[in-house]
Formats: sequence, C-alpha cells, structure tokens
Amino acid sequence: MEIIRSVKEMQAVAESERRRGRRIAFVPTMGYFHEGHLNLMRVGRKQGDSLAVSIYVNPAQFAPNEDFEAYPRDFNRDRSLAKDVGVDWLFSPDNREMYPEGYQTTVEVRGITDTLCGFSRPHFFRGVTTVCTKLFHIVKPHVTVFGRKDFQQYVTIKKMVLDLNMDIEVIGMQTTRETDGLAMSSRNIYLKPEERKSALSLIRSLRLAEELYETGERDTDHILAAVREFITGHPYVKIDYAQVCATATMQNISRIDQEAVLALAVWVGKTRLIDNHVFGEPLDI
Amino acid sequence: MEIIRSVKEMQAVAESERRRGRRIAFVPTMGYFHEGHLNLMRVGRKQGDSLAVSIYVNPAQFAPNEDFEAYPRDFNRDRSLAKDVGVDWLFSPDNREMYPEGYQTTVEVRGITDTLCGFSRPHFFRGVTTVCTKLFHIVKPHVTVFGRKDFQQYVTIKKMVLDLNMDIEVIGMQTTRETDGLAMSSRNIYLKPEERKSALSLIRSLRLAEELYETGERDTDHILAAVREFITGHPYVKIDYAQVCATATMQNISRIDQEAVLALAVWVGKTRLIDNHVFGEPLDI
Repeated sequence: MEIIRSVKEMQAVAESERRRGRRIAFVPTMGYFHEGHLNLMRVGRKQGDSLAVSIYVNPAQFAPNEDFEAYPRDFNRDRSLAKDVGVDWLFSPDNREMYPEGYQTTVEVRGITDTLCGFSRPHFFRGVTTVCTKLFHIVKPHVTVFGRKDFQQYVTIKKMVLDLNMDIEVIGMQTTRETDGLAMSSRNIYLKPEERKSALSLIRSLRLAEELYETGERDTDHILAAVREFITGHPYVKIDYAQVCATATMQNISRIDQEAVLALAVWVGKTRLIDNHVFGEPLDI
Repeated sequence: MEIIRSVKEMQAVAESERRRGRRIAFVPTMGYFHEGHLNLMRVGRKQGDSLAVSIYVNPAQFAPNEDFEAYPRDFNRDRSLAKDVGVDWLFSPDNREMYPEGYQTTVEVRGITDTLCGFSRPHFFRGVTTVCTKLFHIVKPHVTVFGRKDFQQYVTIKKMVLDLNMDIEVIGMQTTRETDGLAMSSRNIYLKPEERKSALSLIRSLRLAEELYETGERDTDHILAAVREFITGHPYVKIDYAQVCATATMQNISRIDQEAVLALAVWVGKTRLIDNHVFGEPLDI
C-alpha cells in the first residue's frame, strides 16, 4: 500500500492506472476507521482493479463551534487497517495541499440540502460537495462508495455527480451497526457509558417507526410523534431533528406515498448522532 | 468530423481516446464562429492529438433581460468552419441534455468574480463556471483554450481549475481583431454602420492607456479619466465599466505596481462590447 500526500502525485498515479484500462474504486473518509469504513473499502475492493482511500478531516465542513480540532485521528492505526483490507493507495493530504491560500471556489447542491442536516448545519453540505469534487478530480475514480448512514450526504453526492456530469458510479452502502444496533460512528467514542445506553434510542425508534409503517400507518405526523416520544423518554437526549423526507428530493412529506426516509439527528450528552431508515427496507438488528 | 449531441456518447468517445493515450484539446464556445474562435481551434489543433469543440448557448449565463433568445446562431455555417479547421468532435447538446428538470448544482468562484463583469452581471460567472465544469467532465480534455478578450472569464476558469484540482491545462489566447483593431465578437453584427465607428473607441482608448503607461504614468485614476473622456467623446456610447485590476486577483488597484489589466465594457447603441489590455504587453494594431 502506497501512502500519498501530494495532489500531483495522486493524479499521476491515477492517470497512469486509467490509461492501463484499470478501474479505480474510491472511498473518501475522515479517518479513524471503524467497521463501517472497512465495509465500504471491502465493497470498493470488489468493484475496482485498484482501491484508493482518502483520509482528510475537511475543515470546510465544520463550523467554528464544532469538533474539528477534537475530531478523533489515529493515522498509524488507520494505515494498518487499510493495508489489511487491501487498499492500494492511501491519500492523506494536509490542509495547505487541499486549500492553499487564496482558495475561492465552492460547489453547491441547492434544494436537496435545504432540509435536515443541511438546515441544521448550513455550511456542512457545501463543504462536503466542494471537497468531494476536489477529491474526485485528484483520485479520478470510476466508482465511489459512500455509507448510507449519512443518507443526505449520499443523496447529495449522487445528485452532484449527476448534475455536473461526473463520469462516476456512486454506490450507497447499508449502515454498519454494533451488535446492539447502534450505527457505527467515529463519534461514538465520545459517549459515556450511561449515554451509550440512551444512544440506542435512535435505532429503536427507527424500528418502532418501521413497525408502524408495516401495520399500515402512512401519516408522518403520527409516526414522528411516536418517534419523538420514544426518544425523549431517555436521559441525556435532545432531538436536533426527526423528519420524514422523500428520498428523491429530501423534502418533507406529510404522507408516505413514495420512497421515504426517516432521518434522525440526536444529541446524546455533547455528542451529535445521526441515523436513518428507508421505510420498507429490512432492518435486521 | 463527428457531431455529437449526447453527453454519454461524448464521454464514451473521450474516455476511449484517453485510454489510447491520446491528448484531448477542447475549445468551449457559444457558436456563431468568427476568426477569434477559429484561432482558438487552431491552437487546440496543435495542442492535442484530438480536438473537441462545443457549441452551447448556455442559458444560465444570461439574465432574463439579456439577449439569450436573440444571440446569433448558425449551426450549418459553424459546422463547415469547424470541419475546415480540423475539429474532430463538435459537441452540441440541447438544453434538456445539459440542464434536465430538477437540476440544482452550481460551481462558484468567489472574490475574483466580485468586480468588473461579475459586478455588472452577477449571474454571469456562476453560469460560466458551472457549465464549464460540466463540459470538462463530459469532454475530459487534457488542455483547453480560452480567449483573453473575456479576460475575467479566462482568469476565473484558471482559478476554478486550480482550486478544484481539475487536471487540465488552461491556455489563454491573445484577442483576435479586425484590421482596424475592433475585437472580434459574435455581437459585432448587431452594430449599425455609424455605431461601428464609435466601437473603435474601445481599442483606441486601450492604446491611449498603454501610451500613458509607457511614458511612466502609474496612477490608475489619471489613466481612467483619460480613457473615459476619450470614449465618451464618441456618439452612441455609454460606459458600463472601465477599471484597472490586478490580474492575480481581479481587484481594483490605485497604482500599477504589479501585472494589471485595463478592462472595458461599453454599450454602443444596444450592443455591449468588451475589450481589455494588460499593461506592458504588445498592442500591435
């Protein structure tokens, strides 16, 4: 496995690979790998002749009051895990390489990013779409793999790739979970033991919502009321948002008459957790 | 020469060309070719093993009150001229192919686009950077050639390519002029005979400014006063802007102590003309 720090070098390696007719798979990450990341890489490994993974904690997608500085990092551990999964290139640039002085350009998907996470964290999606555009130009993948835990991010990237005619296949992977159902996240390490229990309210409320859906409930107000009541019955918990959106547009809907996602963002103590569920899909925990 | 209307087909052709190790040159245009366009293509012809030219009158870079509908078009003439210059692929998509319903994504270069044309036509540069990003993803060029008549556009595209790590060389070509010095433009056909004479005030005022510069004048207020007085001495003429900017940032400067451009936009009757001059460069008319 090759560790690459320079944009120019990564582009040269990728270009030479493409010329040889080899298919490049790419998993962009912020590092601090858990099983969720490794599962994305395993899919990438099968999809491509070569597999690139980036580790870059993107300052443009954190607000000044958010956890950019505190975001967990462990490069040596990540390197070892990536090597074991069969990654070919680990691209890990520094901030000066990615955002040199005088940087001015942004990529923005409107509409789709106005709700949910986009609404709570307006700077977030512009940071994600901009850095992903840069990474796609640097790594030159044929296929890229995103986790569906960040559902709106996955939908936004798919939309950006479509709108800007990027010649890239975007694969969305089911969320990887702990055995008790908690969605894997680098931020889970922030949870104190008593908060860890309350964190299960997310997956359990998703299961509750799916059960209501399976008994025929289609009114999103009814479903959301049940979800909110269930979650707020736990200690240390504060709901940031709980919404039902059409997956095609990420706009709120009042009745579930098309493919729809229940998306949650919940503060558990000082940790913000997200999870989601597409109604009608399996939820085997 | 192949005429291509579909994004997918253009991408497939370009990808196969790249795989064969061949270098793609690309000239994006809005059609209605004049010698200026053909000169860009001739440079592209020398730069690439293959030459792609696009014709697309991009609605996103016109405001509702501007001349999108009236913008001159003559596909058959353009096709014949392109063929004579040795273009390999003429990419000419329709609006539904470029901006299907539900389109939401924009690319924006801030700062550099706040002055001059960007100030007078705020929607303009976002339209240009967005459509160029799309075209670059569709045509997949190694090198692209822009005219420097649209100086701020050229600087903006260079900045976008740099910021977004597009692996593309951007070449800026000197403005092609009529024998009397008028910068070639598709919009020149709008000029009535008496307006055509007043249109020469642009190039003549650029020459006047260069003469002042050569005699040691560095104060931009002095130069601009002379330029404005000269231009407004002509009938049918109204200055939209006349500014001196640093080429690196496109910000106004009060003294010429770095590479600087005098940029003009002037209404002649109902036709808006632009021209510019980088101080110290040859201006042989």
